[in-house]
Amino acid sequence: MPGRPVIGVVHPGEMGAAVAACVSPAADRVLWASQGRSAATRRRAEAAGLSDVGDLAAMCRNAEILLSVCPPDAAVEVATAVAGSGYDGLYVDANAIAPPTARHAAEIVEAAGARFVDGGIIGSVPRVAGRTRLYLSGPGSHAVAALFEGSVLEAVVLHKDSAPRPVGAASALKMTYAAYTKGRAALLLAIRAAAVAEGVDADLVAEWQRPGSTLAELADDCEAVAARGAPKAWRWSGEMTEIAATLEAAGLPGGFHEAAADIYRRLRDLRDADAPPLDEVIAALLTDVRSESRRG
Amino acid sequence: MPGRPVIGVVHPGEMGAAVAACVSPAADRVLWASQGRSAATRRRAEAAGLSDVGDLAAMCRNAEILLSVCPPDAAVEVATAVAGSGYDGLYVDANAIAPPTARHAAEIVEAAGARFVDGGIIGSVPRVAGRTRLYLSGPGSHAVAALFEGSVLEAVVLHKDSAPRPVGAASALKMTYAAYTKGRAALLLAIRAAAVAEGVDADLVAEWQRPGSTLAELADDCEAVAARGAPKAWRWSGEMTEIAATLEAAGLPGGFHEAAADIYRRLRDLRDADAPPLDEVIAALLTDVRSESRRG
Repeated sequence: MPGRPVIGVVHPGEMGAAVAACVSPAADRVLWASQGRSAATRRRAEAAGLSDVGDLAAMCRNAEILLSVCPPDAAVEVATAVAGSGYDGLYVDANAIAPPTARHAAEIVEAAGARFVDGGIIGSVPRVAGRTRLYLSGPGSHAVAALFEGSVLEAVVLHKDSAPRPVGAASALKMTYAAYTKGRAALLLAIRAAAVAEGVDADLVAEWQRPGSTLAELADDCEAVAARGAPKAWRWSGEMTEIAATLEAAGLPGGFHEAAADIYRRLRDLRDADAPPLDEVIAALLTDVRSESRRG
Repeated sequence: MPGRPVIGVVHPGEMGAAVAACVSPAADRVLWASQGRSAATRRRAEAAGLSDVGDLAAMCRNAEILLSVCPPDAAVEVATAVAGSGYDGLYVDANAIAPPTARHAAEIVEAAGARFVDGGIIGSVPRVAGRTRLYLSGPGSHAVAALFEGSVLEAVVLHKDSAPRPVGAASALKMTYAAYTKGRAALLLAIRAAAVAEGVDADLVAEWQRPGSTLAELADDCEAVAARGAPKAWRWSGEMTEIAATLEAAGLPGGFHEAAADIYRRLRDLRDADAPPLDEVIAALLTDVRSESRRG
């Protein structure tokens, strides 16, 4: 719709495509760049009604607002490529990255003349209202939040007094939130694998499930973590590394999430598996040990 | 009571004194060694009706069964001292140690001619029935379990088919159980400290407590962990190191619990504090950073 901004989405994976669909009513057009992307990404982009402009440089020339929704380890690379194309619009980094990584990405795109907004998505892929928040910080936050009005993705600007808080706040909130949910999930899987290795797994579950135990739900939690988490582990490992960096930047130990990154890295071959059972996930954790240590 | 065994307890701290009280009805006498122990230990030992034999060597000469209940980092040292005194009775190591540490302690006392039973205590200090289990493994397990019959401490022999499982099984169960309870507690404290450092703590708690959230109880959990855990952190750090060793022995990452050991080490000055509030615990975590890194 003319008068509305042209918005570009880098990259429309499952989350990115859903965010693009949320922003679409507020946009003249929503662009994506098919160069080097998979057939699955193309299907998602077409289903979300996105217009293919070919490559990232063309998207940077045509878009006034860019949304970066990519695996955490690609966030700085994307910001660097966007800055390299001379983009000078509004750049929203909605990735699961540490505050120092967000500030680094901001410096890169701001040096090219663009404005940087820090975003952090908490919740599931937005398809139904009330399940997903996009937290925002940095001076352009209100303009970004306005794009999502009326959508199923609730945009929340983090304030201090009446101004948006600086770049880094939205990322910090995303990091500390996922630090528990995904950190605890990795901890549970590691513990069950250790219990299997030591031959005490049934005893551990029995102890958790004793009458009156407050841990009775843990065995079910482990099954759910295996079924729902292991297929996403390939991209959670990078997120865990960013969380470790978040804690270390605060002078706290990064070891919880370095270990979680290791656990999820061992599960990379279960990418997109259909609800793998816990014993299969534990077997992957325990058999990967030697190959992982060689890989370094 | 003549005909019943003489039992020695090394060392009657809070847990050890309560275990000694549980075993007392089955014993002729229960001994302790006051040499080098604190006034608080003496009060507990006297309250539990234990007989002071002076030093560890005298206890080893007089006891037929020894129970070791001490901080994890002292377990091998105690086993070494007992073996050095030529003790050849039944030795029960009920400490929170890794299976390899238990097997190492077993080699030490067995070389001196004693029999080794592996124990792991799960639950609170035993004062009321139904709240504490002493898991046992190794060939002498049944003789040890018999001592606790009718007491508030439930002794459970870990079996495979009809025989007790080997030394290491009881320790593995204790380690994997505490790996979650105390590992998660340290994770929560680290996350809240990071959120405070980044200025998003109130936002994180608000996100946890959104309507319909499954994490609504976490804020209360953090307060409880601070109040009840921080005063015990001085001895939990050694236990975390043993849990890290347990995971590493299974080829899994030890980083979760190395980080937890670091968190609890930073709280050592809150030893025996009276239910410290969360903000005080977080302040201790964040201010200890520089002194800790110098200490190495």
